[in-house]
Amino acid sequence: MSVRPVLIRGEWMPSTDVKTFHAVNPTTTEPLADEFPVSPWAEVESAIEAASAAAVTLRGANRELFATFLESYAAQIEARADALVETAHLETALAISPRLRDVELPRTTGQLRQAAAAARDGSWAVATIDTAAKIRSIYEPLGPVVVIGPNNFPFAFNSVAGGDFAAAVASGNPVIAKAHPSHPLTTTLLAEAALEAVLEAGLPPAFVQVIYRTSREDGLRLVRHPKIGGTGFTGSRTAGMALKEAADRVGKPIYLEMSSINPVVVLPGALEERRDSLADEFTSSCLMGSGQFCTNPGLVLLPAGKRGDAFVAAVKKRFEAAPVGTMLAEGVRKGFLDALEIIRKAGGTLVTGGEGGGGKGFCVRNTLLTVSGKQFVENPHAFQTEVFGNGSVFVLAEGLDEMLTVVERLEGNLTGCIYSDTKGSDDAAYDRLAPALRTKVGRLINDKMPTGVAVSPAMNHGGPFPATGHPGFTAVGIPASIHRFARLACYDNVRSHRLPALLRDENPTGVWRFIDKQWTRESIKS
Amino acid sequence: MSVRPVLIRGEWMPSTDVKTFHAVNPTTTEPLADEFPVSPWAEVESAIEAASAAAVTLRGANRELFATFLESYAAQIEARADALVETAHLETALAISPRLRDVELPRTTGQLRQAAAAARDGSWAVATIDTAAKIRSIYEPLGPVVVIGPNNFPFAFNSVAGGDFAAAVASGNPVIAKAHPSHPLTTTLLAEAALEAVLEAGLPPAFVQVIYRTSREDGLRLVRHPKIGGTGFTGSRTAGMALKEAADRVGKPIYLEMSSINPVVVLPGALEERRDSLADEFTSSCLMGSGQFCTNPGLVLLPAGKRGDAFVAAVKKRFEAAPVGTMLAEGVRKGFLDALEIIRKAGGTLVTGGEGGGGKGFCVRNTLLTVSGKQFVENPHAFQTEVFGNGSVFVLAEGLDEMLTVVERLEGNLTGCIYSDTKGSDDAAYDRLAPALRTKVGRLINDKMPTGVAVSPAMNHGGPFPATGHPGFTAVGIPASIHRFARLACYDNVRSHRLPALLRDENPTGVWRFIDKQWTRESIKS
Repeated sequence: MSVRPVLIRGEWMPSTDVKTFHAVNPTTTEPLADEFPVSPWAEVESAIEAASAAAVTLRGANRELFATFLESYAAQIEARADALVETAHLETALAISPRLRDVELPRTTGQLRQAAAAARDGSWAVATIDTAAKIRSIYEPLGPVVVIGPNNFPFAFNSVAGGDFAAAVASGNPVIAKAHPSHPLTTTLLAEAALEAVLEAGLPPAFVQVIYRTSREDGLRLVRHPKIGGTGFTGSRTAGMALKEAADRVGKPIYLEMSSINPVVVLPGALEERRDSLADEFTSSCLMGSGQFCTNPGLVLLPAGKRGDAFVAAVKKRFEAAPVGTMLAEGVRKGFLDALEIIRKAGGTLVTGGEGGGGKGFCVRNTLLTVSGKQFVENPHAFQTEVFGNGSVFVLAEGLDEMLTVVERLEGNLTGCIYSDTKGSDDAAYDRLAPALRTKVGRLINDKMPTGVAVSPAMNHGGPFPATGHPGFTAVGIPASIHRFARLACYDNVRSHRLPALLRDENPTGVWRFIDKQWTRESIKS
Repeated sequence: MSVRPVLIRGEWMPSTDVKTFHAVNPTTTEPLADEFPVSPWAEVESAIEAASAAAVTLRGANRELFATFLESYAAQIEARADALVETAHLETALAISPRLRDVELPRTTGQLRQAAAAARDGSWAVATIDTAAKIRSIYEPLGPVVVIGPNNFPFAFNSVAGGDFAAAVASGNPVIAKAHPSHPLTTTLLAEAALEAVLEAGLPPAFVQVIYRTSREDGLRLVRHPKIGGTGFTGSRTAGMALKEAADRVGKPIYLEMSSINPVVVLPGALEERRDSLADEFTSSCLMGSGQFCTNPGLVLLPAGKRGDAFVAAVKKRFEAAPVGTMLAEGVRKGFLDALEIIRKAGGTLVTGGEGGGGKGFCVRNTLLTVSGKQFVENPHAFQTEVFGNGSVFVLAEGLDEMLTVVERLEGNLTGCIYSDTKGSDDAAYDRLAPALRTKVGRLINDKMPTGVAVSPAMNHGGPFPATGHPGFTAVGIPASIHRFARLACYDNVRSHRLPALLRDENPTGVWRFIDKQWTRESIKS
């Protein structure tokens, strides 16, 4: 079988490099048939040049263009649903149903349609007008955006179809998508759908380009290239930090979602009140998709003593009874076992699991560890090692003061949850812990596990470093996620016929604008 | 005279270090009487600890507290106006009137009052509510903010009174101000006013702290300290880049305003139509305050040939006739002459000026250089060296294509202006140049020099790297400048009595909120 081509300048071109790779079927642990290229720098550079030319062509483009593309793309994806879910299943071992077909695919097309609505509406651009000073400003496209997707969502965070892609397009940017090498054929199928939608919408053919893999050094050159506007990355902390350094040095915006252990605090009253249902809820959240979620509950903080011990026992029982899922790749299994080793060496006690096996292909037994609050406080770095997968660390703290100290030692996370009882006996504890947890997490949750990430304007799928690179931005939720791929553009004393449509006096489509310190959908009366 | 104390934890404490410095009177070039400390690390660290404790105390604080402080501080500054303008004049040589007393001081108190209004109102926090999903989010304070001010605005960008300070406080953050060592006594006087306002408002005494100078290494330690939320810096590119690297490595937000040559394009028709008034306008903008503005017009792009030459001659005449101002410091003069040397070595032609002297104290003759468009395009890096002060480089381009090439070679800048004629003969040229210039600058201006920076919600005093570190943020303009010092805080399923005031159903003060995708000042009906 010949090597799969890359998508550059609207054409599927044979890659010029000799290096190739295969994805691996995680269930059989055998390589899959298709062979994909590692693109050499010249190929990456030609994609950058083409994207840059497309961005120039699109200056001042009608925002309807991007809306049309996004909607048409969503429909193209739906038309290819069967092939997509089957291919993604082969490459990731994620269940066809409900996960891929009934949850992730609709989420992906839903995101694209929300992005389309935002692009069409234009309110995301925060048109701000000072009529007296004759100054007007707006968010405009940043320039070509590089999207580097993760392994764990072959659709919803895919570099050519996921949240970063949708946000970058909604603000009007051409995208260079770097596929995740563990699901390249899924990415090919999505890219085929995207190309069709690009041509249908009449966008420049280079509006969406796809490469599969580069050398590490070429990846760094890509994100720091002068003609790149910015980058969206979801993946490991190691890769993220290397890309961040490259981009930061040349002042290129880069948005990273890197790692998170998503602390869950269970207060004594809640344990007393509903231990078994909490154990069910936790087990289901922690083991779903083999635990391979950015918001997987990887650390649970509990009161030491009888109630905590009973919860540990309840979860142990459930972990042992639950089926063991297949992981996305050998690298995920290895990373899991390496992380476990760090935590055990630091003194963590293995309650159950802790070794490979128990299921099909790449897998590790459902794993639970415990540490005391004192141990955690003495070695917070080791005990916050992310165990990406179907495992979690329970911290058993002696009293509220120690719980608070544990919370204060936490790094930045995407989410933090607190479970409290419904009668008020935990309220004083909540009031002490919540303000401290608040500053450590992007999303503070009550009485609910963190694994559901609603695509809502109020969502924050972000958080303090090292969960992301900047605590002011979210990767999920429209319009906020779109702002990441835009720059602030001010027009001072610019003659009215030269202003962008959203900044003119007339507002025929009723865009929300901030005029003279008030939000309004009205036109400006001259 | 004893060494001036530092302001830590609400007290003026003797510095523990032995290293000291004096500011210099730029007019006499003699050291001023007061002696100021270079703070050792232990002192910086105690300020960080105190600021961090203050931030903890202030979690969930009533926003009225910050509004009261900012207003009271503005009044305190006004009560000290005479001493402030006299001291600032001695330390900076900027004119008492109109500059310091009639322009910069009122601008400073105006900024503080606008920040107070924003803090009180609360709309800046972009409260976003999804009633169906039970998800609500808001911007919250980032944690203690370090502000490092520049030399050129002793009030309006002062670390303890300027725009960054006002923005950091409006979002509720304690501030550690690092004074600029060229105007330390001005900073002392401001800090005294601030402390009085802090106590009057009932804020924690460590809410505003001031140090004067640190070693370079301790400055880096400060911005990357785990208990610091973020940093605002205005100053040189060299210092800014070092701080940026330190902060970036640990994922701490840092907002930098570093350098800008603020290109001004004068199209042929405009030259034809109003050459002399343009020469007046340019001269006044370029020489005002000895040219020591972030938005000084340091590069002018003109058509080569008769019209361009006539403009060069008109400006030469005015530069030679205009008085030579005193610069802020010996370092500014040296930097100016060094930059000039780079440009001359690269082939720039000196039209007038180019050497020290012509005025009182630290000064350089009003300086004008020319280069051809071809020269610029061949060596764009050298010809974009910032000549900070009363000088400018004119680029004489052969035709529109060469003008466009020059614009495409520009680095990121705060501003870019285009002058065109009023009859339409320049319109085609404008339409070709403006889109390219647009992507290079934060603020695009028509028919007006860049040196006025209105404090308006629509202002962007920011721009692409290296003018700043991120093209999505502005240092001037409320509410946008406040967002820099805030993090996005999402509340998911949080019980209603635990929500921050701005996210509750009731909206008694009519804050603008984004509820279910609509902006409204109404309460949510239950």
